[in-house]
Amino acid sequence: MLKIVAAPNALKGSLSAFEAAAAIATGVKRAAPNAEVVELGIADGGDGTAEVLRRARGGTFHELVAVDPRGRARTARYAWLDDGTAVIDVATASGLALLEVDEQSALTATSYGTGELLCDALRRDARRIVLGVGGSATVDGGAGILQALGARLLDENGHELERGGAALSRLSRVDVTSLAPRARTVPIDIACDVDSPLLGELGAARLFGPQKGATPAAVEQLEAALQHFAAVVERDFGSDVRTVPAGGAAGGIAAGLFGVLGARLRPGVDLVLDAVDFDRALDGAALCITAEGRLDRQSLRNKGPFGVARRAAARSVPVVALAGGIAADVSDRDFPAFAGMFSICSRPLSVEEAIRDARPLLETVAERVVRLFIAAARAGART
Amino acid sequence: MLKIVAAPNALKGSLSAFEAAAAIATGVKRAAPNAEVVELGIADGGDGTAEVLRRARGGTFHELVAVDPRGRARTARYAWLDDGTAVIDVATASGLALLEVDEQSALTATSYGTGELLCDALRRDARRIVLGVGGSATVDGGAGILQALGARLLDENGHELERGGAALSRLSRVDVTSLAPRARTVPIDIACDVDSPLLGELGAARLFGPQKGATPAAVEQLEAALQHFAAVVERDFGSDVRTVPAGGAAGGIAAGLFGVLGARLRPGVDLVLDAVDFDRALDGAALCITAEGRLDRQSLRNKGPFGVARRAAARSVPVVALAGGIAADVSDRDFPAFAGMFSICSRPLSVEEAIRDARPLLETVAERVVRLFIAAARAGART
Repeated sequence: MLKIVAAPNALKGSLSAFEAAAAIATGVKRAAPNAEVVELGIADGGDGTAEVLRRARGGTFHELVAVDPRGRARTARYAWLDDGTAVIDVATASGLALLEVDEQSALTATSYGTGELLCDALRRDARRIVLGVGGSATVDGGAGILQALGARLLDENGHELERGGAALSRLSRVDVTSLAPRARTVPIDIACDVDSPLLGELGAARLFGPQKGATPAAVEQLEAALQHFAAVVERDFGSDVRTVPAGGAAGGIAAGLFGVLGARLRPGVDLVLDAVDFDRALDGAALCITAEGRLDRQSLRNKGPFGVARRAAARSVPVVALAGGIAADVSDRDFPAFAGMFSICSRPLSVEEAIRDARPLLETVAERVVRLFIAAARAGART
Repeated sequence: MLKIVAAPNALKGSLSAFEAAAAIATGVKRAAPNAEVVELGIADGGDGTAEVLRRARGGTFHELVAVDPRGRARTARYAWLDDGTAVIDVATASGLALLEVDEQSALTATSYGTGELLCDALRRDARRIVLGVGGSATVDGGAGILQALGARLLDENGHELERGGAALSRLSRVDVTSLAPRARTVPIDIACDVDSPLLGELGAARLFGPQKGATPAAVEQLEAALQHFAAVVERDFGSDVRTVPAGGAAGGIAAGLFGVLGARLRPGVDLVLDAVDFDRALDGAALCITAEGRLDRQSLRNKGPFGVARRAAARSVPVVALAGGIAADVSDRDFPAFAGMFSICSRPLSVEEAIRDARPLLETVAERVVRLFIAAARAGART
């Protein structure tokens, strides 16, 4: 029996991870009607992680009011898994998608709303908290989350700082005496979809700030503020937040929660693949098909498909990555973990067409990949 | 040793068959540096057949002045193979590409220039003539060729008809007494890239006339003229030109030369694959990669890739077809001869970009196909 695992990320803007898995399964079945197809929508810590884990592990959603990056009250939700784990997407309360373009302000955007969700989860006695960091609008080092949890971020006169990343340049000390009970004892896992450090060229301000509306001047202002924040946290809490891998995820939320709360920073895809029992799904599989909206040199080193390929390679299961588009500078030789990469574009298409027709296009290319795979496997078996 | 045969058609507008074969070979070598790659540019009777046969069999070109579809003198050429075969592309003297759009006139366009090339080949004592029929501007049933060879197409008053398809409605008889010596004795093989009959919905006028500038009224005028032409030829020469398969190729040139000269109509791709020794190239091959500018339901039933797939299937060599674009309505299940079909479009691209970047895109998708093929063959060998 041919067993094939369909383990795609969401194709952002067109298909959820589950829709993508279903489309791949449809294509596989066309090429191999008798195949066993395991559908696993995955995520890598980016937006959608909560729903992926809820579907895989069972659970429900809690909905509540929390502030958005500009401080406006909005409805947000997080997943509550049957085992007592709370899974919070930063994007749900602190996401860039909540803002109009002219509302983006990287200097003042706050992660406070995400902290309100954490508070709620702690009040409900969550046994563990998973934070998916993709899609944030903030560059505040997680200061807003800490404030919401009851930490006091004080300037040299003992006054509380206003919210947002820029204010951190005036931070004198972090007072955690009023921190929410259990905030530093409940395990917090941060599912990171990038491995960028907090500071520097690849860090939260310089690499990701511009995507969040920061001007070049604002980027440098934030870089300096985060540097200062890191120095204060290191002095008071003894953690090296400056160099911790992935500390730059979600505008430094990863670094801040690592430094002050002792959160663990994990590659999001590994955390998710563990949760969905990916390794078990690979047992006896002949092929694994993953997918992503766009494969470029960056995403191929961090995102879902890469994590899938690494694990499958360890079990000698070949992995094919499908994508809306593959960047022109992606050389397959640089990504030997993949047995192949194919675009859903079966003809010249605009981006809009590719997004609109993503489902049938994905079905078709999955079908074609499996047809070739079967023909080649037969040829190999003859030799 | 992994042996792979690269046997593409030209990708019209971007790569010749030889350039396409070289691009595929480059991609194959990236995925499998030690592979043996056989590069065979192929053709299917479409434009470029002469050059493909000349490269495969050895030979030269003869250049001469011949009239274009509007009767203007232009330089044309045909291939003279070392074995004394003349290979003439109809497109070289009678092609649609010779005309500006506002010069197209399906009613009057003549194949006379192609006949001049045939005359030249007969004068040089060609042992055999191959006519590649793709890309013609004419719907004259080959009347122009017959006229150039010395046949007299007469109306009921014994006057010669003017050139072009429309005049055939007044044909009374075909006088072959002055026909060029050997025109009816030298073997003429017509390499057809379609299997359309002369008449009817899928015929020379109704299916292909509009591409050649015929208005709906002109299409029906030509359909009637060809019907009449067929009746006269059948009466005088005893051949059923109305129903002969592929008689509609090149505006009915196939039917006319079949009826009057006894030309043999052959699927162009088979004729070419014989000439390039395709079957021998397949010996010991693990995979064959073919290509075409565009794969649609029509081309998949007639053009080069289909012929390649049919022959390779007979030897159990899997065939992958690459294309600039694959039509949305192509279902792989309808084309089981192919182990896979993949577009060169690795991301959303305009037609212009796909044409401009065809070479690197083709290299890359060939590389990806071979990587997957090898991985799958290994997986198959393990089972």
